[in-house]
Amino acid sequence: MKIEKIKGFRDHYPDDMEIRNYFLNKITSAAENFGYGRIDFPSLEPLDLYRLKSGTELVNQTFSFTDKGGREVTMIPEATPSTMRLLTARKDLPKPVRWYSVPKVWRYEEPQEGRFREHYQFNADMFGLDSAETDAEIVGLASTILDSIGLSGIYEININDRFLMEYILKDLGVQDVSGAFSIIDKFKKIDKKSFILSFEGIGAKDDEIKKILSLLGEKVDIDNLEKRVKKVVKNYDDIKSRIDRIKKTFDLIKLYTESQINYDFSIVRGLSYYTGMVFEAFDIKGELRAILGGGRYDDLSKLFIEEQIPAVGFAIGDAVIELLLKRQDLWMRRDKKESYYICNISSGDDDYIVKIASRIRSINKIAIIDMTHRKLASQMKTASGFDYAIIIGEKEVEENALTVKNMKISEQSTVGYDDFLLRLRNKSE
Amino acid sequence: MKIEKIKGFRDHYPDDMEIRNYFLNKITSAAENFGYGRIDFPSLEPLDLYRLKSGTELVNQTFSFTDKGGREVTMIPEATPSTMRLLTARKDLPKPVRWYSVPKVWRYEEPQEGRFREHYQFNADMFGLDSAETDAEIVGLASTILDSIGLSGIYEININDRFLMEYILKDLGVQDVSGAFSIIDKFKKIDKKSFILSFEGIGAKDDEIKKILSLLGEKVDIDNLEKRVKKVVKNYDDIKSRIDRIKKTFDLIKLYTESQINYDFSIVRGLSYYTGMVFEAFDIKGELRAILGGGRYDDLSKLFIEEQIPAVGFAIGDAVIELLLKRQDLWMRRDKKESYYICNISSGDDDYIVKIASRIRSINKIAIIDMTHRKLASQMKTASGFDYAIIIGEKEVEENALTVKNMKISEQSTVGYDDFLLRLRNKSE
Repeated sequence: MKIEKIKGFRDHYPDDMEIRNYFLNKITSAAENFGYGRIDFPSLEPLDLYRLKSGTELVNQTFSFTDKGGREVTMIPEATPSTMRLLTARKDLPKPVRWYSVPKVWRYEEPQEGRFREHYQFNADMFGLDSAETDAEIVGLASTILDSIGLSGIYEININDRFLMEYILKDLGVQDVSGAFSIIDKFKKIDKKSFILSFEGIGAKDDEIKKILSLLGEKVDIDNLEKRVKKVVKNYDDIKSRIDRIKKTFDLIKLYTESQINYDFSIVRGLSYYTGMVFEAFDIKGELRAILGGGRYDDLSKLFIEEQIPAVGFAIGDAVIELLLKRQDLWMRRDKKESYYICNISSGDDDYIVKIASRIRSINKIAIIDMTHRKLASQMKTASGFDYAIIIGEKEVEENALTVKNMKISEQSTVGYDDFLLRLRNKSE
Repeated sequence: MKIEKIKGFRDHYPDDMEIRNYFLNKITSAAENFGYGRIDFPSLEPLDLYRLKSGTELVNQTFSFTDKGGREVTMIPEATPSTMRLLTARKDLPKPVRWYSVPKVWRYEEPQEGRFREHYQFNADMFGLDSAETDAEIVGLASTILDSIGLSGIYEININDRFLMEYILKDLGVQDVSGAFSIIDKFKKIDKKSFILSFEGIGAKDDEIKKILSLLGEKVDIDNLEKRVKKVVKNYDDIKSRIDRIKKTFDLIKLYTESQINYDFSIVRGLSYYTGMVFEAFDIKGELRAILGGGRYDDLSKLFIEEQIPAVGFAIGDAVIELLLKRQDLWMRRDKKESYYICNISSGDDDYIVKIASRIRSINKIAIIDMTHRKLASQMKTASGFDYAIIIGEKEVEENALTVKNMKISEQSTVGYDDFLLRLRNKSE
């Protein structure tokens, strides 16, 4: 009976997994070097945790169900609510708190290229401070991570500020600000006519829509931000300090990365909980959807506790990383452990063979014993995938020696056991 | 609104996680050194995959549900069915196949000490060969893993052979062999009277039960296995070759580990799919349930494809490892990255500070910038949790210098930036 995996889910075989883990380690290592500590939380959470934050739309896209104890639960569709639960449960944590996590997350939606129903998602967040410095560190970490896996030069980061956007929208007279954000979020996906119609739908007037459109059309160099904002707002001085903060954030981000950083009024990130800076990274060619995204969400803690805890963070999925690295021909591992394949053609002196394998493994190298008892030629064929073949036959056992073949340069010699150990030991230092 | 996590699930904060990951890396590294390649598979699988293997009892203990597309699915309660799915889907894989995986698995059952509804489970399996050598490698890998995390000397491994057990039971005249296995599986949990009653319940006669009991009472030294078996079977020669294989397996296992290895007729491992060697590791004090368990299951592939693929493997959960390591006072990480905490008391020369942090991170050490703008004393208090404090004030910025304090020996000095980099670079070599 053949049973298929569920649509939109992935299997991973070792060739694939070792590359995935190589890059995952690079990413988590970058986060640790920034002083972010790893957390983990259940893959199953009460559905209310998501209703609280995201409303029913997201809930419809979850793998949620009523468990055998009658509780409404869901396989987690994202990390933020659980992270907030951990944060608000512990009042003793000194602020700022820097955390990262790499949970599997699940969404019940139609699979597309680079989008699956299950994926690993790297999340990083800093809690407890609201400043240009901390905004910049989060964007700096995001770009350091992309740079560390070899993507520098192929992405750009587009930044907006929800606080500024809200000010502008209100200043223009837009009543339904969150409605406006939803429409702006679709700016790149819909045509101009539909965009205007949508804005008219929430009661915006022609000149308001015109001014909004004048901001959205293209990315803005940070040096021109002031000029652009002055053109649309009535009283620039009211918002000047926010513009200064945004400019400072840009200056600071440039200390972390040489990547292109743009101001982009069209980045609002649909979810309504963002309160300040929002950002997304895109491939420069513009072939893919956002590579990663995040921002500041200072009010979310108030859904859990009475205290407001400033928060800024971002998330990136494994599927888009894989897609990008494959397009750049970077999808390979570069730090493979040295590996030894031990061909056994003795009449079973396992004692000697296992001893050799154990010594190799004890210095953290790979040793595989061929247990097939095939002819040497067949065993050597398998060995071709490894760095070294070790051949143990009657002669080697008798002489306490090993025949070692370097498979890369096809050089073979027989060495005494002690000599072999000496060479191994020197290598491991 | 306060939302609690679901009962039987765990949160993990950074202190805890870094120790968990330290040990997890030791375990996966040991598996890789044996040539096992990592696989991964969906956390959600069709429920039929488990019905196929385990029947309804296990299915009742799963987090299973009908998804929005009307499919019966389950959060995976174990790794073996998915692993078999991956194996049987690829006919091109050269045998033997050596795989490991570390999925989260879920069971809907009452939480107890060391048992949760969600845990990480390490699995290792070898497919394609049926021999004493391969049985021994799997037990050898299991013990190498326990030894590698510091548990050598505190556990023992108890081994039985389902092929031998089945032979003995049939030879004694027991009709319902799988019923007998279920009862033997409970031997250590029920009293002698209930044990006898249960056997009578499946129609066993008094002298049969007596002989079975004579085997189960105590662990057997492998040198006495032959004698013990001769006492209960009618014709020893019929089963001699199997006894020889078991003895050979023991000899081979002893090449991998110095731990105590016993023969134990009471180890049958409830699940009915085992076909040969079965084994469990226990703490020597006998305070805990089995630490790990596994065995040979050569027939399971036939549920998926027509071909029989020999298979041997084992699994170990993270909760029992944590419990054991804590009891041994070993629950700590020993390979922490060097860490620098940068106290910023300058009037904001972020350029210099971010540059220092970036250089430290670039050689894979931890650098955290204090962004609180508190007084130095407060910043230094936070710094006490790190290896070094770096203090940057007006003077340091002006002189292009750093004040560095070694927090372990409380030694402080001011060094030039270039000197500092030189020292860093020497350390990283």
